[in-house]
Parts: sequence; structure tokens; C-alpha cells
Amino acid sequence: MSLPLTSAVYDWLGADIPTRHKRTVYFNHEHFHIVLTDQPALPDTFRRHTCPTVKATAFAIKEMVVRGAPAIGVTGAYGMVLAAHESTNMNDLIQHKAMLDNARPTAVNLTWATTRMLEFTKQIIAAQQQQSNNTTHPISSLVPLLLEEAERLADEDIEINLRMAKVGSTVVPIFQDRPTNISHRCNTGALATVDWGTALGVIHYCHKILHRNLHVWVDETRPRLQGARLSAWELTKANIPMHLIADGVAGGLMYQGKIDIVLFGADRVALNGDVVNKIGTFPLSVLAHEHGIPVYAVVPTSTIDLTCLTGDEIDIEERSSEEVTGLTFLNGGSVAPAGVQVYNPAFDSTPFKYLTGIITEEGMCYPPFKESLTKAKEKAEERIRSFWSKKAKM
Amino acid sequence: MSLPLTSAVYDWLGADIPTRHKRTVYFNHEHFHIVLTDQPALPDTFRRHTCPTVKATAFAIKEMVVRGAPAIGVTGAYGMVLAAHESTNMNDLIQHKAMLDNARPTAVNLTWATTRMLEFTKQIIAAQQQQSNNTTHPISSLVPLLLEEAERLADEDIEINLRMAKVGSTVVPIFQDRPTNISHRCNTGALATVDWGTALGVIHYCHKILHRNLHVWVDETRPRLQGARLSAWELTKANIPMHLIADGVAGGLMYQGKIDIVLFGADRVALNGDVVNKIGTFPLSVLAHEHGIPVYAVVPTSTIDLTCLTGDEIDIEERSSEEVTGLTFLNGGSVAPAGVQVYNPAFDSTPFKYLTGIITEEGMCYPPFKESLTKAKEKAEERIRSFWSKKAKM
Repeated sequence: MSLPLTSAVYDWLGADIPTRHKRTVYFNHEHFHIVLTDQPALPDTFRRHTCPTVKATAFAIKEMVVRGAPAIGVTGAYGMVLAAHESTNMNDLIQHKAMLDNARPTAVNLTWATTRMLEFTKQIIAAQQQQSNNTTHPISSLVPLLLEEAERLADEDIEINLRMAKVGSTVVPIFQDRPTNISHRCNTGALATVDWGTALGVIHYCHKILHRNLHVWVDETRPRLQGARLSAWELTKANIPMHLIADGVAGGLMYQGKIDIVLFGADRVALNGDVVNKIGTFPLSVLAHEHGIPVYAVVPTSTIDLTCLTGDEIDIEERSSEEVTGLTFLNGGSVAPAGVQVYNPAFDSTPFKYLTGIITEEGMCYPPFKESLTKAKEKAEERIRSFWSKKAKM
Repeated sequence: MSLPLTSAVYDWLGADIPTRHKRTVYFNHEHFHIVLTDQPALPDTFRRHTCPTVKATAFAIKEMVVRGAPAIGVTGAYGMVLAAHESTNMNDLIQHKAMLDNARPTAVNLTWATTRMLEFTKQIIAAQQQQSNNTTHPISSLVPLLLEEAERLADEDIEINLRMAKVGSTVVPIFQDRPTNISHRCNTGALATVDWGTALGVIHYCHKILHRNLHVWVDETRPRLQGARLSAWELTKANIPMHLIADGVAGGLMYQGKIDIVLFGADRVALNGDVVNKIGTFPLSVLAHEHGIPVYAVVPTSTIDLTCLTGDEIDIEERSSEEVTGLTFLNGGSVAPAGVQVYNPAFDSTPFKYLTGIITEEGMCYPPFKESLTKAKEKAEERIRSFWSKKAKM
């Protein structure tokens, strides 16, 4: 199986590093451990964090050494490989899975990935028992097969991102005499996935593969500053021209005609096309809409929740005050009075009417979103069915 | 002359502190020095900064110990009292004035106040010379008269703020069963003026004088965080209920019906009603407009520049990258990669169409703004003329 293309984010690591290791999450087969890009250490230090055990993996997920739904999911899948290695029976494996799942209970992708690995294990065991008259092999003997499956899952993440990127690249406008100015919020890039990313994946693809002339306005993304910390780091490593801006700046840039397109990711997309994403996405969308600038959410179909009718149904998580007040000026001064009342919602919901379209790995979705999103979801399911039926025939 | 009303911001200092000392800027007659609220020390420490000399005053202005156009202006006026004390002749006084003016060359209010004090000095000298056959008194002998004029200027600032506040209070909606939710950006309160403030002055007035049921959503106001540092401190001291929010939060609150009115100040208002204010004001206005929420700029008529036709004519100052990147997380981590490219405009321009009205000390200005602003400006000039003609007759 040929490896999927790599983004430019880890190119600087050099030619002596194996291609599969130029990722935010990978498995070191030689040392038999998971390797993560240590995200809390960024942007000051690029360093790798290794997880040789299930416990260490759960800890890394909990402490947000790895973040971004797809990156967490794949980490969980690799975690199940370690779990199989540490298990003697199915009960052990299930307990290890629970330890991984509990590390970030709200991360849907995590449970989705560990469950997929567990189901896969059960299938192999069932097949083995059929073939060999109910002889039970130890779980640890399945490690090579599970690792292969986890690698497939990691590659699949990249492939989905690349499909989204190709679709997205068709709506990014081109100008003969100047770069295309793209507004981006939060971090949706290689650091949030295995490689490439969703919205930032479109940007990486336009840069590395299509050699487009781009410039990115990076919202710093208060309160957690994922734009300033992570996207700025990623774009710098990939040599994509950018400027970091405070969150209130994009509106004025739009008024001055200095933004051509707005791209962001999403945590959940409702059936009607409402998009729940990092707090501050809604203002950005309203401003773009007001200025006639195209706005796209870039999401894998797994993010589309057809059971959720509108964005208003989705509970917005409120997070700790410290995310807002937990900074100091370089002179040590506080940024807010001690004990000040803070309202810190993690997300907001952008009503579909402010979106031009939603970019998925199954193609562009335009209004009416109920129809286009349902169709994209069906296409994705059909693709999975067809993959499994091919695999069953092998 | 009776002292103007005080806001609730310095009430906590207690009854043994003279009323005139419950201000952001005042002159200590006993010790003969200027006293400022040390703003870089906030919100961690409330401490006063004293300026016993012109040099010390210029330094305090330069180092932004005092900020906010009206507060800087009055500091400059008091600085001219110290200048007269340190001068033996008019040349000395003019040189001291230049030292003050150069401390913050772009602060129009500063030069306006020092020039007014210089002109006042020249008038007294001319009158004395007429009365006493060209006998020249030493400049320092004029100190008591200059101090009286500076005090009048300080009181005038408060009186203008109170007039604006009364006007503004008429457009703040009242609800029987719940507090009025006000969105506010930057710091436009007692800390930016002598007392009360402009937009925050309206809020202080509604709270302290009208006993209205209020709740303020305070934009933290990146990059310099004046909302988090200063407005949050001020509102806390005045016991006005509030929540601090990151800059991207207000939009979602508007969508949820949790903001009833938006109030902010301005650095300059153009003839057509375009308002140049702290970066991030434009997005806030567009969002409010989109949700049918009233938006008001609160400005003294001195901020209206009839020679400037539209906001597009006004150059937007770009400030240093460090304002955006010069923070650290509590663990010492950087908020952005070293050397990252930053675009950091200090202001943006809100086109008049997004404003419901402009609140001035001469009354409400509604569209067409060209007419209403011109009329307000004329009324203010008429008031000044009438004051001077009364004074001349005394």
C-alpha cells in the first residue's frame, strides 16, 4: 500500500526521517510505542512525546498532549494496539478501552476509534475460531493485525483530509497579480489531525500541491490562542505567508477588501447546516456575509450529525475562567482582576444562512443543506460499505 | 463653586479622603504635585503615582501611567501649573510645554490642554501689563491662577461626562423583570477621564444616580486588554454586575438575546458619523446591527472632527507586535512563535450606517449625522463662548 502524500508541516525534519514519522501521531514499530507532537510545548519547543503503555496514552490524551478530534481518534486506535499487547483476554482489552475512553469522555472520535478497533478484534477472533475449531489464541497474538488496522485508520484520516482539500481548493479564488487572502480561525491543521488537516488542510494543499500564491490572516483565537500558538507555528514551518491578528481585526480587513475567503473547521454540523465551532466563528461568518465574502466550513462527513436538527439544539460547553484570565504580561502583571466573573463558552453556533457552503470529503455541500449534507453522508457510508465488502472478498 | 458629583469608582477609598482626591487625576495642593492612578499597576495593585515636576509629568504621560484622552489632557493642564512654578520667563514656560506635548505627540487632547493653559497665561500677563504700566511679574507668581484654571478644566471634564451620561441614560432600555444587558468595549470610564467616563460614564450614572438594574458584558479587548484589566477593575470597584468575555463571545450573546444595547467611546468621529475607535469596535457594531440591537458611540463634542469627511480618511495607527505576542501562559509558555509576523492596527472605523446614534454632552445625534453632529458642535461652541463672555464680565 502506498503512503498518502505528506503536508509541508514536517518536511523540515529532513529526508532521514521516515515518511510515516512525519505526522502529528504515529506508531514507532521498532520501539513499539506511540509518538505524539507535544502540543503544550509549542510554540516554544518542538518535541515528541512517547506513549509506551495504555496508561501513558490515556494520560497524554487527558493532559491534551494531543488535541484535535481526528488526532485523538487515531491516538486511541494506536492505544488499542498497546492494549492488545498488554491484554491476555477480552476482558483485559475492554478494560483498557475504557481507560482510553475515559481520558476525554466528550471526544466522540476517541470512542468511535477504540470501538472500531474492538469490533475489528472481535471479528478476527470470530474468524479464527471458525477456522480452527474454537481454539482461542491469546489477544496479544493479534497485535500485528491490530497495528495494521490502526495504520489503515491513520492513513484513512490523511486520505479524507486530502479529499476535502481537493474539493476545497476548487472554491479558493485565484488572482493573477496578488496572493489570495484567506481568513482562518483556531487550529484545524496537521496538528489537529494525523496530517494536513481540515480547513488548514485546504490551505496546505493549495500551497504544497497546487503552488498557489496565498496569504493567511490567522485569528489568534482567544481564549486558548490555538491560532497564535499552533496555526502560526504550522504555517511558519510550512513556509506559508501569514500574519497573526487579534480576534477583532478581521472585520476591518474585510471592509478594506483584504480577505477573499473565510475557512474554518467544525466540531458539529447540524442537519440544517448550522455549524458549531470554536467561539468567535459566528462573528467571523456574520462579518464575511455582510461584506459578500465567501465562508466555508471544512468538515469530514463524520462531523455531520443528521440527528441534530439545528445548531440551537447543541449545548454549548462552558469552560473555566482561567482560560481567559490565566495569562500574564511579560512584566508579570495580571490581565484581569483576581476573582473576576467570567463567561467562557467554548463554542458558538453559526446559523447556516451565513455560510456559502460546507466542504466535505464527498464534495461540496450547498444550500439547501438538509439535502446536500444527507447526500454527502450517504456517499460516505456507501464508500465504507464498498470498502468492507471488497475487504471481505480478499 | 460646588464640586461635581463623583462616580462610585473611588467611593471605597472612604470618607476621610477629600472628594477632589477621588479622581483618576488630581492636584495635591498641600504637597504641590499631580497625583495619578497608576494604570500599569492595575488590576494587581491600586497605587497612586505622584508627579512633582514637569519632567516627572512628561515621563508619566510617556510611560502611560495615565491613559485616556481626557485624563491625559487634564494631566497636561496640571503639568502647566508645575511648569509655571519652574519657569522664570515665558520662554521657560514654552519649553516646558513642549516637553509635555512631546511626551505623547499623537494625543490631541494633551496639546489642546497645554495650549489652553498657555493662552490663559498670556491673557493674564497681558491684563496685568495693561493694569500696571508694563510691569512684568514673574511667571511663578501666576501659579495660583493657573491652578484654579486647571481645576476648572478638570471639573469641566467631569461635567461634560455627566451631561453625556444623562443624555445616554435616556436610551438605555429598562426591563421590569431582569437587568439591562450592556455590551462595552475597551475602557472608557473613570480611569480614562477625570471621573465617570464616556460610554462607561453612562453605565456608572445609570447605576449610581438612577439605581438601574444593570449587567455589563465586558469585552476583554485584545490586544492591550483594557477591558479585562481596567473596565473589569472599575466595574468591580463600583459594584456593577459584570462578566468578562473574550472578544469573540459577544456575537453569540446577541444571537441568544442576551445583549440589549452596545455602548462604546471613540477616538475620532467624522462629519458623516463614521466612528474611529479601538480595534474590534467595527465587528461589534456590525453584529449588533445584524441583530437589531441599538449601538451608540458616546463622545464629547471635542472628539467630533468636522474637517474629516469620512472614517476612511483617517489613518489607522499600526502598533508593535509585542502587544499581541507579549503575554505568557501561567506555565511560562509563549502565546505565539518567536518572530511571527503580526498585523496590529490600534483602531478600526465603524461606518455610520451601523450606528443607531451618537451620544454627546449636547444631546443625542441621529442620522443624518452630518447635520446633527454639526449642530452639536455649534451648541458646544456657543456654550464655550457664553462662558467666556460671562467670565470677561466678572
